[in-house]
Amino acid sequence: MIIIGERINGMFKAVNQAIVDSDKAFIQDLALRQIAEGADMLDINVGTASAEPRKAMTWLVQTVREVTDVTLSIDNPNLPTMKAGLEACTGRKMINSTIGSDEALDTFLALAKEHSASVVCLCIDEKGVPVDVDGRCEIAMRILAKAMELDLPMDDLYIDPIVLPVKADQTGPGKVLESIKQFAMLSDPPPHIVVGLSNLSQGAVDRKLVNRAFLAMAIAMGLDAAILDPLDTELMDTLIAAEVLMNRAIYSDSFLKAYRQR
Amino acid sequence: MIIIGERINGMFKAVNQAIVDSDKAFIQDLALRQIAEGADMLDINVGTASAEPRKAMTWLVQTVREVTDVTLSIDNPNLPTMKAGLEACTGRKMINSTIGSDEALDTFLALAKEHSASVVCLCIDEKGVPVDVDGRCEIAMRILAKAMELDLPMDDLYIDPIVLPVKADQTGPGKVLESIKQFAMLSDPPPHIVVGLSNLSQGAVDRKLVNRAFLAMAIAMGLDAAILDPLDTELMDTLIAAEVLMNRAIYSDSFLKAYRQR
Repeated sequence: MIIIGERINGMFKAVNQAIVDSDKAFIQDLALRQIAEGADMLDINVGTASAEPRKAMTWLVQTVREVTDVTLSIDNPNLPTMKAGLEACTGRKMINSTIGSDEALDTFLALAKEHSASVVCLCIDEKGVPVDVDGRCEIAMRILAKAMELDLPMDDLYIDPIVLPVKADQTGPGKVLESIKQFAMLSDPPPHIVVGLSNLSQGAVDRKLVNRAFLAMAIAMGLDAAILDPLDTELMDTLIAAEVLMNRAIYSDSFLKAYRQR
Repeated sequence: MIIIGERINGMFKAVNQAIVDSDKAFIQDLALRQIAEGADMLDINVGTASAEPRKAMTWLVQTVREVTDVTLSIDNPNLPTMKAGLEACTGRKMINSTIGSDEALDTFLALAKEHSASVVCLCIDEKGVPVDVDGRCEIAMRILAKAMELDLPMDDLYIDPIVLPVKADQTGPGKVLESIKQFAMLSDPPPHIVVGLSNLSQGAVDRKLVNRAFLAMAIAMGLDAAILDPLDTELMDTLIAAEVLMNRAIYSDSFLKAYRQR
């Protein structure tokens, strides 16, 4: 399982304040704590509050890179800010994200290739999020075809079926689970399949419970990457148990500890 | 989800003692507490300690039936004890269980028909538990064919793919998940698919964590019944969240409470 830590995000008040104050210690501590709990990559998101997002992204990337060489997932919908992040990022990097329309894919997959970056492609196109599984698979196939055309390594491709809040549409989670199952059969080897987990429980009570139940279900279907909060201990425990049950991590009596230290 | 409470089992020391002492209050309290937490049926197992299992089963069934009319799952591998339980049980009842060999199926499915009982059929035959998914599906198909031959209502048929301890064989849980997925496609309507959940974590540390992660995964695959401990609050919370995420229970801000009171 590829765990992408979600916590360095300007949408969180304290992170936004740290960006405003150029508080390196706060950001670097948040980076290292997520890695200690099992994060393989770190998402870097400046949020929407910054008046100078390019400058904020550059500072954030450089600040995190000073303390770790894990892959940084540059998370921004805006092309100039994305480019600023990619240019500031030495070492391994990920583009998070592009939508799955032809035009966006042409731009962002070329950018991924240029920067030897991996890339998250969302199952959204100019018409929005498809209402059914077939619509998601159609976009996923378009993404795959484009990636092959550009000779992008399959290991750099992350397809996201788009998780929407269960509170808004209760048929959504089942469709995402079915989409994951289908994506896993689209090619051999399959692309990575990733979700932004926390979106599922927006506005819900018992958010953490909803997140961790769904994560186990999605892992059973073939999910192999997720953007989530590695500081949520119960969530990580569930993830690790699911990995063990899928025989993707070794069972031992101390499997929780062993996984976090892998 | 059909929840079969596992707690009235003579393998538990306190339950065994209550059987020895003919302590009705203890057993009836255990029955009512499981129902209050969401059990739809109650498993009735005298364990192996009793010198007179038929007498113990009769007493146990009558004692529970005095306080509830839910389905009682008569859980015993021995035919005379099973018959004693079925005869003592007024109202709805379940045979738990038969193996899937021709001979056992002939006997126990006829018994189910005679008593208008539902029946749990295990994917084991005279050669033991199949090592792979195909072997389990073969037995499941034999079970289905026999049930159709005897005109047993599909709603009375519960197929159990057999969960073995993850500690003993880490490839087991994945095979069970795949089997569940296949069983759900065997007929339309499909039979019920049930597991004895706790067996998964025999000998493991973090037993409850392993149980609840697997339960969510199995529900995603189509599991619709389980023998489990409804007094394990976190397990039940996970089950309820998974049901909501599969759109089989309605989301509301108080979905946990609403489900238990359904």
